[in-house]
Amino acid sequence: MERILSNEIKNYIGKEILVKGWLHKKRAMGGLMFIVLRDRRGVVQILVEDKNEGEKLQGIQIGSVLQIVGNVISEPRAPGEVEIHEPKIQVLIPVTEAGPIEIDKPISHKSDNLDTLFEYRVLGVRNIQEGKVFKIRSELNRYIREFLNKNEFVEIQTPKILAGATEGGAEVFKFDYFGKEATLAQSPQFYKQIMVGAFERVFEIGPAFRAEPSTTSRHLSEITMLDMEMGFIESHDDVLQMTENLFYSVLTRVYEEHGEELKSWNAPELILKPSFPRYTLKQIHEMYTKATGTDTTREKDMTPDEEKWICEYSKKENGCEAIFVTEFPIESMKFYHMVNPKDPTTVLWADLLFRGLEIATCPMREHRYENLVSQMKKAGLNPEHSGYKYYLQAFKYGLPPHGGFGFGIDRLVEKTIGLGNVKEATLFPRDINRLTP
Amino acid sequence: MERILSNEIKNYIGKEILVKGWLHKKRAMGGLMFIVLRDRRGVVQILVEDKNEGEKLQGIQIGSVLQIVGNVISEPRAPGEVEIHEPKIQVLIPVTEAGPIEIDKPISHKSDNLDTLFEYRVLGVRNIQEGKVFKIRSELNRYIREFLNKNEFVEIQTPKILAGATEGGAEVFKFDYFGKEATLAQSPQFYKQIMVGAFERVFEIGPAFRAEPSTTSRHLSEITMLDMEMGFIESHDDVLQMTENLFYSVLTRVYEEHGEELKSWNAPELILKPSFPRYTLKQIHEMYTKATGTDTTREKDMTPDEEKWICEYSKKENGCEAIFVTEFPIESMKFYHMVNPKDPTTVLWADLLFRGLEIATCPMREHRYENLVSQMKKAGLNPEHSGYKYYLQAFKYGLPPHGGFGFGIDRLVEKTIGLGNVKEATLFPRDINRLTP
Repeated sequence: MERILSNEIKNYIGKEILVKGWLHKKRAMGGLMFIVLRDRRGVVQILVEDKNEGEKLQGIQIGSVLQIVGNVISEPRAPGEVEIHEPKIQVLIPVTEAGPIEIDKPISHKSDNLDTLFEYRVLGVRNIQEGKVFKIRSELNRYIREFLNKNEFVEIQTPKILAGATEGGAEVFKFDYFGKEATLAQSPQFYKQIMVGAFERVFEIGPAFRAEPSTTSRHLSEITMLDMEMGFIESHDDVLQMTENLFYSVLTRVYEEHGEELKSWNAPELILKPSFPRYTLKQIHEMYTKATGTDTTREKDMTPDEEKWICEYSKKENGCEAIFVTEFPIESMKFYHMVNPKDPTTVLWADLLFRGLEIATCPMREHRYENLVSQMKKAGLNPEHSGYKYYLQAFKYGLPPHGGFGFGIDRLVEKTIGLGNVKEATLFPRDINRLTP
Repeated sequence: MERILSNEIKNYIGKEILVKGWLHKKRAMGGLMFIVLRDRRGVVQILVEDKNEGEKLQGIQIGSVLQIVGNVISEPRAPGEVEIHEPKIQVLIPVTEAGPIEIDKPISHKSDNLDTLFEYRVLGVRNIQEGKVFKIRSELNRYIREFLNKNEFVEIQTPKILAGATEGGAEVFKFDYFGKEATLAQSPQFYKQIMVGAFERVFEIGPAFRAEPSTTSRHLSEITMLDMEMGFIESHDDVLQMTENLFYSVLTRVYEEHGEELKSWNAPELILKPSFPRYTLKQIHEMYTKATGTDTTREKDMTPDEEKWICEYSKKENGCEAIFVTEFPIESMKFYHMVNPKDPTTVLWADLLFRGLEIATCPMREHRYENLVSQMKKAGLNPEHSGYKYYLQAFKYGLPPHGGFGFGIDRLVEKTIGLGNVKEATLFPRDINRLTP
């Protein structure tokens, strides 16, 4: 007898079928017993009247793996409008001890429960509501890849074990590599630029590692990055256009195809235009200072509160809750960024903000060898270091004007669903305090 | 003026167009100069007659980034059957020093040239022939994902930083994680099994790290793994069927859609049947011993020569160069494998061999909590270790019968194209001697 999955049961009314899954709920009601069985497509309710069958479930806990043969009855009040009657139950794997968390009702995501959420994640993901987060995450990844494939981006897989040269900025994890010091990649930055020389357009979705001793709701020590790089651009604007095209197409698609799941998470309505408003950092500081009375005009970056404020502002004023922040000051540049030729106090670097959070960084790169070497030296880096030597080869032997983005997939999932902490969107988050599960 | 890409130029005969790309070849012929320009779609030949234009290319080396406006002429002898005449050349990025390797002709993959191949990989990937390897790799990844999505597998992203418990077998890299000892994941084994409890069917394509002090043609210290796991299987056979379905569909598709690229690499003809022959390890030892006179009947695994021999044998006898090796001896089992209930001296573990190399391992797992704990203890492992504690939770609270595979993507690409060393199929390979580029 072939297994029937829960969402197909409605096609078998009046017939005897075989179902398999996890015991998801069990309740007694006036001598009757109702159980709910979960499989990968959903749930089905089963009415157990026969005492001999009911006895098989004595002492059997949620999570037990069952195989049931029974008759399908139309039952408008049950999930999926069907019910299985006269079940013959076989307990494949009995769970004899009640689990440490309840998984048949939504798990609290309140900040004081997050540690419990992560500690019991192994079981928590079996919660149907929780599972939706990671199904949406899987779908987001798929939509992103489809968009990039359609736009001729070649997917690459670059090394995560590096010779130790860093991009500057975040801290790195170091380890012994057969007697040499190696570091874990904080991004595929150098490799994606190198690969522009081969394919013009490349992308990667993979892990990146940052030894930031941070416990905020925005940081992880291991993140999933979507990195893209494109060559032969006319200007920085080409990068921003590709970024907004990708973001708009992926987000509208996930809202179209997974609207119900998003609604069950109370995800906010998606308010997006195909072209995103652009503000310089200076403009935002001035607007925010004027609106709130808190003076940020001397800040070199945005404060978290400014990020929230400008997205709210743009949602109301422009009907678009994604915006680009442009013209970051030269003081915060990385050595591989391109200085703004129209204003050498700023860099051709834009951040994409969405729903109050920085989701992606989308700069143009300095592609001229001599300029790059001089920017490295200015930043106190040694161009002869073996981690830079090969990177510089790509420029010495010809790279066209190029730029790209680094997207935090974890943050994207967080904000798409409307969660409050990046760790909620990550299966098994890692931070300074958490190395398990 | 909009940039026209090389493969579209044939639609502009008689018109003036703009092209951009890298100088790929340059040769003088009786007062004339021919150059070849490379872009992401291919190449185009350009005839330079005007001395002033020719002078712009004086001292300009391969790799220089050019922008050219010129007239499109039909020219059956040129690549793409078109040529650009009367070019007006602009050198966007001049390369003034000849590169350390030639990239306008195929790069040798002979074993004594491999170190040069990897040392100059940054430039080597610009070689059109070399680039095909990584385009095919990108496509293989895409086909695999499409197959798995169609079969309801949810893509997961699991942590690469672990608390230190290992699966046994390969060596691990260790490092300091905010004062605790952490290791780099040698596979997503534990996490994919855990996730069967949520989604039944999951997969991941990501890096895995093995501190193997090895320099063979089969090993890397950082590999890309395709990991799949599926629950509610009836028997080990379900895993093998899913494996051969995926392998057959992906390989026939890459041969159909990328036949020309594969031919240019002299990739062997694909000889595959939808269902792969299965031999027990014992059978192979006996067949090989009989055929070659070298006695392997007391080996616990296959020798590299046996792997080659059995694939050749099956290609000739069965018309299928992929085979499963089944019934590995219990001595080589990992603690999470399932002992063969029909023969407790063997394990429900199969290897997929293709063209003489082990490409994937496809075992069934022990899903019963008590058995698993007892197998751990037998293997000398501590079930209380924090790296195992969470893993065991998944079993204690109910996991159905399940199994899956671990595919080496690097090996798959190597054998699909017909390369001789796994490192040739990896963009920037890592082994005991190589940590750069």
